[in-house]
Amino acid sequence: MKSFTDYIVFSTKNRKEMINITPRIEHFISGKIEDGFLMVSAMHTTSGIFINDADSGLITDIEELLERLAPFGKGYHHHHTGEDNGDAHLKSMLVHHQVILPITSGKLDLGPWQQVFYAEFDGQRRKRVLLKAIGE
Amino acid sequence: MKSFTDYIVFSTKNRKEMINITPRIEHFISGKIEDGFLMVSAMHTTSGIFINDADSGLITDIEELLERLAPFGKGYHHHHTGEDNGDAHLKSMLVHHQVILPITSGKLDLGPWQQVFYAEFDGQRRKRVLLKAIGE
Amino acid sequence: MKSFTDYIVFSTKNRKEMINITPRIEHFISGKIEDGFLMVSAMHTTSGIFINDADSGLITDIEELLERLAPFGKGYHHHHTGEDNGDAHLKSMLVHHQVILPITSGKLDLGPWQQVFYAEFDGQRRKRVLLKAIGE
Repeated sequence: MKSFTDYIVFSTKNRKEMINITPRIEHFISGKIEDGFLMVSAMHTTSGIFINDADSGLITDIEELLERLAPFGKGYHHHHTGEDNGDAHLKSMLVHHQVILPITSGKLDLGPWQQVFYAEFDGQRRKRVLLKAIGE
Repeated sequence: MKSFTDYIVFSTKNRKEMINITPRIEHFISGKIEDGFLMVSAMHTTSGIFINDADSGLITDIEELLERLAPFGKGYHHHHTGEDNGDAHLKSMLVHHQVILPITSGKLDLGPWQQVFYAEFDGQRRKRVLLKAIGE
Repeated sequence: MKSFTDYIVFSTKNRKEMINITPRIEHFISGKIEDGFLMVSAMHTTSGIFINDADSGLITDIEELLERLAPFGKGYHHHHTGEDNGDAHLKSMLVHHQVILPITSGKLDLGPWQQVFYAEFDGQRRKRVLLKAIGE
């Protein structure tokens, strides 16, 4: 069994952004693993990783869904710490912080419309995503 | 480390269906891996994979929850592409497109009520689920 | 490839509880795996596993979000079985029943605020969580 680990750093311009990271992931696994699993996992509790279609309208739909379910700025209990990002923690819960991707014949074994996104819910500072591939 | 990969094809009669795929998964791993992980991952952005209890009433409750949180037919931004399945993409986000199952002593190591479901949110056409087992 | 499996048993005092299980997980992997994946997976359909910040205010926010999206006691179809825990099944769907954790240099490779929680939605009885590490 082989394993490879790397960390991608993000520092977004906006507080909320969704970034297609599929090309960076493809670059990471290239030449390393023929068959196995790739973990893509946000290392923060106010970010998420998800797979969906790379359509800008759909990304807006996803943002609106999350804003509806966990709106910014309500009086969250978490704000007793002085933070104002309670919504970002809840959005991270709903989206989830990780996916595991299949690697087959040296490539990401995804369907035609599946793209991997980093979801930033409280950015404008240095945040990391872990990549770890295991396999042969 | 050994690995095995297969693809299950679905083409549902109805637009929305939830299908218990546990027997097909058990068949797939039989005789292949003694101990390891099995990935079950929808290859489409309008489908999901989840684990819950195989009770028809509960399946209706899950469908009603998803319809309440991401109702069909609202004016989703995604529909600028000509699609009418914005709700299906959001339901896939909420349910998630994958699970990782433990294999112990050659069998799925699930609790007594845990069954694996394929959730189709925009069917009536050919769709695939990837199975990939790694282990010894 | 090496693998290790264990089961944690919970029997909570309250029907609903959220328990930080990070120390137990760290103890489990200690000395076993240098690099690989750890699965933490609830074996019940009324429990969840999630990662977030260990702030008591935030835990209350998460509980309130789940109660808002899937309230206790409504007339769920699942209750035709005689159960009254339909909400617990739906909360398990929203939170998810598992996470996969990275192990690097013999330790959990988590961000500074990432803690692993067991979410009990229908407790006061014996329930299990599976731990399975694979790697080298």
